[in-house]
Amino acid sequence: MEIEVLEGVFDANEIIAKENRTLLDGRGAFMVNLMASPGAGKTSFIMRTLEGISGEIKPAVIEGDIAGKVDSERIAEIGVAAIQINTGGSCHLEARQVNTALNHLDLDGVQLVIIENVGNLVCPAEFKLGEDLKVMILSVAEGHDKPLKYPLMFSESDVLIVNKIDLIPHTDFDMAFLEDTVRKMNPSVEIFKISCRTGVGVDAWIDWLKNRVKAS
Amino acid sequence: MEIEVLEGVFDANEIIAKENRTLLDGRGAFMVNLMASPGAGKTSFIMRTLEGISGEIKPAVIEGDIAGKVDSERIAEIGVAAIQINTGGSCHLEARQVNTALNHLDLDGVQLVIIENVGNLVCPAEFKLGEDLKVMILSVAEGHDKPLKYPLMFSESDVLIVNKIDLIPHTDFDMAFLEDTVRKMNPSVEIFKISCRTGVGVDAWIDWLKNRVKAS
Repeated sequence: MEIEVLEGVFDANEIIAKENRTLLDGRGAFMVNLMASPGAGKTSFIMRTLEGISGEIKPAVIEGDIAGKVDSERIAEIGVAAIQINTGGSCHLEARQVNTALNHLDLDGVQLVIIENVGNLVCPAEFKLGEDLKVMILSVAEGHDKPLKYPLMFSESDVLIVNKIDLIPHTDFDMAFLEDTVRKMNPSVEIFKISCRTGVGVDAWIDWLKNRVKAS
Repeated sequence: MEIEVLEGVFDANEIIAKENRTLLDGRGAFMVNLMASPGAGKTSFIMRTLEGISGEIKPAVIEGDIAGKVDSERIAEIGVAAIQINTGGSCHLEARQVNTALNHLDLDGVQLVIIENVGNLVCPAEFKLGEDLKVMILSVAEGHDKPLKYPLMFSESDVLIVNKIDLIPHTDFDMAFLEDTVRKMNPSVEIFKISCRTGVGVDAWIDWLKNRVKAS
């Protein structure tokens, strides 16, 4: 008989991530893991996305934060099923927390689950949650050099959202440098340039996401 | 005989943090632990600070990053002793890494050691490095609501630098809300409002820092 050896926290996490995947596959639901630094615009991006898919795709949202529930309240206010995970100090979500959240949410008819991870460009990239898609946001104000400093997040993400492009005229942000750097690390990444504040560029992301969810 | 019990990683870290403190006290050097999200402006802030104290206070810089050495090279270029710690994936610096760095730096005559922690608003707040002062930066672009989501960092910091204030007219940033929220959590915090890009507000910080270093 073979003895299975769990190599610490990552293997244990991966097993539960697969359980999450099976649970969602059974219901035909698609899951997005949204990651970014604090203040890059994760919640505003979710609000724009919910608005864009409204009437076509039924969503649910899992909010991960160190503390508080302001984000999940904002989402529940517009009539979308939302649940809050407070990590109590931990800097990333793990699959077991998402598993608990999935089992507490009313998933009846839900086609898209969006997870807002804890604001952090480092550790969330290391923990699979059972998602179909890893989406990261970089705010223009953070600077175009960030892929060099946080390479795992930029390499692991399927989609890069460059947010707050309305601020470009007021910064030294170099979009060509960013795109060039990211594509060298991650040739298949999809890049969308948007402003959640003004709404510019959001439609292209919404159209792309709708196609992905419907094709799944 | 009493047996000392180390409560895991935090106690072990604290012992080495105290060693760092003793090492610096023996040399009359002051140490700043600088923390912020990715892209809040840590390196630009260090460059402005080094410029401001030039000729009066002898500095050295310890750069913490997941990967790369662009920041330490930028600092070495202006003739300041700098050393790079690459954490290789870890999202915060620990006292043992700073201990190694301090033992590798030429500290002869150095009065101020500035540590640039890994870009992260969560875990760095939990690990003492032996610093005299915890300084955090919040960029205006991150939003005024961040203390509610990352309470430990805002509670633990002795100084809050609000950076990129030149962007305020282009955002919905509410400075009064930020100050009010932070002071409720941390009544003794010093707050400086600056723009590393334009230089506005930097002098007040430099004057305050010089006084603190000289008084130590």
